[in-house]
Amino acid sequence: MKTLKNITINKLKKRGVKIIDIADIVFDLQKDYIKNLKIDDCLNTVNSIIEKREVIHAILTGIAIDEAVEKELFEEPINNIIKTDDHLYGIDEILPLSIVNIYGSIAFTNFGYLDKIKPGIIGKLDTLGKEKKQCHTFLDDIICAIASSAASKLAHKNRID
Amino acid sequence: MKTLKNITINKLKKRGVKIIDIADIVFDLQKDYIKNLKIDDCLNTVNSIIEKREVIHAILTGIAIDEAVEKELFEEPINNIIKTDDHLYGIDEILPLSIVNIYGSIAFTNFGYLDKIKPGIIGKLDTLGKEKKQCHTFLDDIICAIASSAASKLAHKNRID
Amino acid sequence: MKTLKNITINKLKKRGVKIIDIADIVFDLQKDYIKNLKIDDCLNTVNSIIEKREVIHAILTGIAIDEAVEKELFEEPINNIIKTDDHLYGIDEILPLSIVNIYGSIAFTNFGYLDKIKPGIIGKLDTLGKEKKQCHTFLDDIICAIASSAASKLAHKNRID
Amino acid sequence: MKTLKNITINKLKKRGVKIIDIADIVFDLQKDYIKNLKIDDCLNTVNSIIEKREVIHAILTGIAIDEAVEKELFEEPINNIIKTDDHLYGIDEILPLSIVNIYGSIAFTNFGYLDKIKPGIIGKLDTLGKEKKQCHTFLDDIICAIASSAASKLAHKNRID
Repeated sequence: MKTLKNITINKLKKRGVKIIDIADIVFDLQKDYIKNLKIDDCLNTVNSIIEKREVIHAILTGIAIDEAVEKELFEEPINNIIKTDDHLYGIDEILPLSIVNIYGSIAFTNFGYLDKIKPGIIGKLDTLGKEKKQCHTFLDDIICAIASSAASKLAHKNRID
Repeated sequence: MKTLKNITINKLKKRGVKIIDIADIVFDLQKDYIKNLKIDDCLNTVNSIIEKREVIHAILTGIAIDEAVEKELFEEPINNIIKTDDHLYGIDEILPLSIVNIYGSIAFTNFGYLDKIKPGIIGKLDTLGKEKKQCHTFLDDIICAIASSAASKLAHKNRID
Repeated sequence: MKTLKNITINKLKKRGVKIIDIADIVFDLQKDYIKNLKIDDCLNTVNSIIEKREVIHAILTGIAIDEAVEKELFEEPINNIIKTDDHLYGIDEILPLSIVNIYGSIAFTNFGYLDKIKPGIIGKLDTLGKEKKQCHTFLDDIICAIASSAASKLAHKNRID
Repeated sequence: MKTLKNITINKLKKRGVKIIDIADIVFDLQKDYIKNLKIDDCLNTVNSIIEKREVIHAILTGIAIDEAVEKELFEEPINNIIKTDDHLYGIDEILPLSIVNIYGSIAFTNFGYLDKIKPGIIGKLDTLGKEKKQCHTFLDDIICAIASSAASKLAHKNRID
């Protein structure tokens, strides 16, 4: 699993996403709820999420689809439907449920929120896709899922009973 | 079914929610995407959603729980957990999935967004709940679900192929 | 949390469900996949699931609804719709998603399977409900969710990389 | 949309799935619940489901992934993880939620059931995949989703109020 995790983190980097980019979004999501939240807490939490088998599977599958579409390896019309990220194409929002579901309802509502406002690296990926320079149809939603799941995990951990 | 629909609309009104309150939120969600969108389109779409059996079941069940909690009919500790809408209590976000799921991924992402920003009537219900005057733990999320589903239905209808 | 867990296990017992009843179903689901599976492994896994806050919330909420319906505390028509567990009433299958989702796709597919074949205690609860002696509209689906989640957790744990 | 539907039906046929194969599964699922159910009702219902944009998107995306894996177009290790349909790989069960969710809780529980018992064409696809002759990791689950959704649609249509 450790090798798989390293492969996944390297793959993310190759596609333009560093762990700190995701941690920044998590920090903004949770800073108002958790006193003295540190960026290092966010980094560690994002790392702990990318360790899980289901998360690794979702990341590697999503990036494989994006790359295949970039190289036009899929048949038409589906290659172009994914490439243009048609407003009514919703498979890219379904696949990350395999991440979000694991982390409960706080992950789930934050996922929808991030998908709408597209902060930081999520917006950058979205813009690169819309300019047709690269295809990030699946990756931007996967980053939303990792960030919202990390936010949920932090919220549960910092709960005082 | 027509009688069931009327019962449901009256129940919503009794709990402080008019159809126009929901239509207003739908209008704000979709006005940037649909040219010449009219509030009447939003009203009709919200009405068409409240006609569906699954939606009626979700609304009536959610309100029944809220009312039981208000009257302290549930045993402790669950009555109080629902009443205070504990940050880590997530059943109120799960139940409306029975509405949101039907309307696809646009409904799903808008649901999370509305749940975070709580515009209009959603915020009002949330505040009344937090002030312990009434219990709207389930109803506010159900309104998020109806509004986001109406937004999704409008988006699909106004798509030109 | 420990007190909450004990309250939940006692509540289950009062409604007719012992932990061993759930463990039996888990054993049958996984015995063909895991060599030398012991009933004690199943018992421990079910116990570890009932420890989680989201699971406790789902169980206590579901039972609270069932009990309110039994005592006819909800208004009509929803009290009767839940009592008769109308074939098209689906909220009782949605609520347990808060449990199943956490444990991934093996939990999710086993949930649907158990809901169809209703083995052991699940069938008993269903029959008691249909004979109108008690209302278990929500509880039987929650037991499906706990058993399928335990099966999934065991499958992941016994995986050799 | 009509062209898209024809492309999709042809694509299914090329991958070994005829509409009648799916209708047969639907018939078996619903024959005990609907009096005088005819295979033609099942055929028409399956056809009406494959008409929907979300369903077309799911089918074409799933098959595109299967074909890419067959031709080894994805990088390792994900190409091999999908090819062997690892017991713990669950993305193939998540993608069809974009179909199942639309048709409510009867679709959802039947989906899990079909995924376990693998009747008819579903079992055939699964076996071909396991013999490494073809890759149907995503397609078999998509057929489960179409069949269970058709069963749910028929159940709702034949309900007498």
